[in-house]
This record gives sequence, structure tokens and C-alpha cells, in this order.
Amino acid sequence: MHFTTERRLDDGVREREFTLGDVPGTLWTPTTSPAVPLILQGHPGGLSRMRPRLQARATHAAREGFASATIELPGGGSRSALPDIDRARSDLQEAIRAGQPITDDIVDRLVLPLVERAVPEWRAVLDALLDLPEIDGPVGYSGGVISIGVKLAIVEPRITAAGFFAGSFVPRSILAQAHRVTIPVLMLLQWDDEYNDRQMALDLFDAFGSQEKTLHANMGGHTGVPQHEGENSDGFFMRHLRAAAGG
Amino acid sequence: MHFTTERRLDDGVREREFTLGDVPGTLWTPTTSPAVPLILQGHPGGLSRMRPRLQARATHAAREGFASATIELPGGGSRSALPDIDRARSDLQEAIRAGQPITDDIVDRLVLPLVERAVPEWRAVLDALLDLPEIDGPVGYSGGVISIGVKLAIVEPRITAAGFFAGSFVPRSILAQAHRVTIPVLMLLQWDDEYNDRQMALDLFDAFGSQEKTLHANMGGHTGVPQHEGENSDGFFMRHLRAAAGG
Repeated sequence: MHFTTERRLDDGVREREFTLGDVPGTLWTPTTSPAVPLILQGHPGGLSRMRPRLQARATHAAREGFASATIELPGGGSRSALPDIDRARSDLQEAIRAGQPITDDIVDRLVLPLVERAVPEWRAVLDALLDLPEIDGPVGYSGGVISIGVKLAIVEPRITAAGFFAGSFVPRSILAQAHRVTIPVLMLLQWDDEYNDRQMALDLFDAFGSQEKTLHANMGGHTGVPQHEGENSDGFFMRHLRAAAGG
Repeated sequence: MHFTTERRLDDGVREREFTLGDVPGTLWTPTTSPAVPLILQGHPGGLSRMRPRLQARATHAAREGFASATIELPGGGSRSALPDIDRARSDLQEAIRAGQPITDDIVDRLVLPLVERAVPEWRAVLDALLDLPEIDGPVGYSGGVISIGVKLAIVEPRITAAGFFAGSFVPRSILAQAHRVTIPVLMLLQWDDEYNDRQMALDLFDAFGSQEKTLHANMGGHTGVPQHEGENSDGFFMRHLRAAAGG
């Protein structure tokens, strides 16, 4: 892991960009605490476009004593393009525009290769992050792409709590594995999200094997998550990462 | 409205029992504030059995500067029995025990007469409460029976926010009116509540005409609402009743 930039944000947050192999990412740590829990911040790809929102999430998390890290999505932003995924994304957007049903084929072609590539990248980054003296654990996952988060929660035992944003279509093969998620889950759902299938999201929530799981649904579309849910999400990670850290 | 008992609870809360006609009820007010918003605390009937939980909710609300009031359900507790409703309740419990489907007929016979009787009682109590110098408004409704709360939210313009507990079966005729609910709604749903129909609860949430509505679902049965949802509910009323009160 090579750090390429470093700067201070407001509120005592240190922001460092890094690369691990060909994967670019960003790490935010509170400057006040020596060794802190970590939240992996998921997003839909395009780190530079997403940076303001990710910075806001990371600054908020730092105030609660959490480090945050994110990496660029496979094929996203400055990374090598993945033409098959781009084609599937175009097909999805075209189907949504035309008001046509979203076929399993489109969802599989878009999401499954992302999951397959992103999960090992996140795990490699996690190895590197947990070697840093300022990162301790436990580790949470927050955000989308929800299928990546679900798969990570299944295969990565170091992730102990997950706040999923149900803002993307979910392949049936991911739904079929959801019972293997057993960590505490908070799932956010926008009730009228055009980039999502509401019933599939409810089925996914139902399928999680977790003893503690919470669904928070709000009105509006993809980008309309209300501010109070962000604050609520802090409470979720405070309960599960802070408690595990003995804090 | 006649006050029949008065005592101080911990945390600066004044508890007074009252009767209005033949309807017994309880009012909790914070002793610190002169004129405060009011939360009508709904419950499934049996005031004395429910008192510890209602006191806890009212004490919590008082800490945020809200008065709370509740009344006994028609046919509940010390009130005159309503044999038709009791029979419907027995039929419901028998059907649940036997794992049989809950018919519309049972739900209608149980819930509709409760709604028809309880709604005017709540409105009469609200008239009397808002005449007290220590109660100002705005007014919220919190809890169950959800069909009573939904109907109140439709017909009573003084109610400006509602936190519904989806812990009871809902008649189809109530569902058909739900689009007339336009105030901010927070709906709590226990995902595996045996006294509820999950799909009907989701349909009800979908049907509300409110621009701002939030669904919070958690694992477990009827009585398993986690503590963090209670705290979240405080935040909901703080946003909607405090803001309206200019506080």
C-alpha cells in the first residue's frame, strides 16, 4: 500500500489517498485517537465524483472515533475500463428509461463481475489497512454496491457489522447466499428508488441469517436518503463496533 | 375531564389519572415546562397491565419536553366489556394458535368497532387536554392500535405527526383509506410479529399519502422492539413536534 497524497480536513480528519496494486483508494483517520475501528465505505463507483459525499461520511464517522476507507470500483473512475460491465450498465439504464422490466441477465452481467473483482480487492486493502498502527478494528461495511457488501459480509470474518444501502439491483445468486450473512445488519431502502427492485430488497432483508437486522425505508428516490438516517447509521456502528472494541 | 389521582414520578414527571365521561385515562406532564407539545400514547388495551411501559414512554417523552396522554381502549381494563369484540379477539387468538389463516371477517369484527368507538373518545380527550394551560400542542400519536392511529390521523387535523406500531391486523377498509394520511409518519414493524400480517403492513406503509414517511423494521416478535428504535422515535417527534412548536 502506497500513500500518494495527504492532507488535513476540518474537524481533525487526516485524508490520505493510496494505491494497492492498481487499485486507488482513500483513507480517512481521526487525528485524535491512536488505534480505531474501521468502516469500509462502499459506493457505486467514480471516486472523484463521490468524494464530497464520502468525505462527509468519513468526517462524520471520524467524529465518532472511526477510521474510514474506500477504494475505486473495478472499471470505475481512473481504472481500466471493463467494457462488458459498461455495456451491461448501458443496457440497465436503457431499460429503466424505456420503462422495461430489468432482466436477470442484465443484473447478472452488471453486478456479478463487479462482486467477483471487488471482493478480493477489498480484502487485500483490509489486510494492508489493519497493518497500519492507527487502525485497529473491528471492521464494518457501509453503503453500496449492496451485492459487494453482502458477499464481503459472507466471506470476510473480520467484518462484524454491515450497514447496507439497497440502492442497486441484486442478482438471484447473491440473494440465494444471503442466509449466510449472520452479522448485525442495518439496511437502508429508498421506497421509490428507480435503481432498485423494492420486492427484491425486502426479500434480501428477509433472507439474511442475522439475529439482529434492521430495515429502514424512507420515501423518495435513489439520492434522497434523509439526514436523520445518516445519524441513525452512526448509532448502529457505535453499538456494534464500539462495543466490540470495548469502547 | 376530572382528575382522580396525582403523583410525582422520578425525573420531574407529574402523573395524573383522569376520567372523561366513562373513559379513564392518564396524563403525564413535565414539571419543568409551562406549555408543551402532546403525544397521544396508543396501546392495545388494559391500562393497568400496560402502565409500566406507558410510564417509561411518557417519562422518556417528558425528558424531551413532551406531555403524554393515554386512555383505556373501548372494552379494555375496567371499562364495560364489549362481548362482540371479546369474541372476535378469542377467534383471532384461536386462529393464530391453530396456525390458520386470519380471515378478513375476524379482523373486521375485532378492529372496526374499536376504531369506531375509540376515535371520537380520543378526540374528546384531545379537546379537554388542549384546554389545560400546561398543554399547548402540536400533537402527535404514538403506538398502536395502528388502525385507530391511522383513522385519527385522517380525521383529526390537530395531529401533525404519527409514530405507528404495526403490531395488529389491519382491516381492508382502513387500508383503503390510508392514502388520506398525509402527515409525517414513522412506522415500526416487527418482522416476525405473529399478531400482524407483514405484507399488509408493507402495503399500508406504501399506501400512506405522506410525503415524509419512514419504515423501521426489526427482527423478532411483537414485544421485541429494540431500545434504539425507541430513541429513534424520540428523534422523529423532536423533528416534527418541536419544529412545529418553534422549539
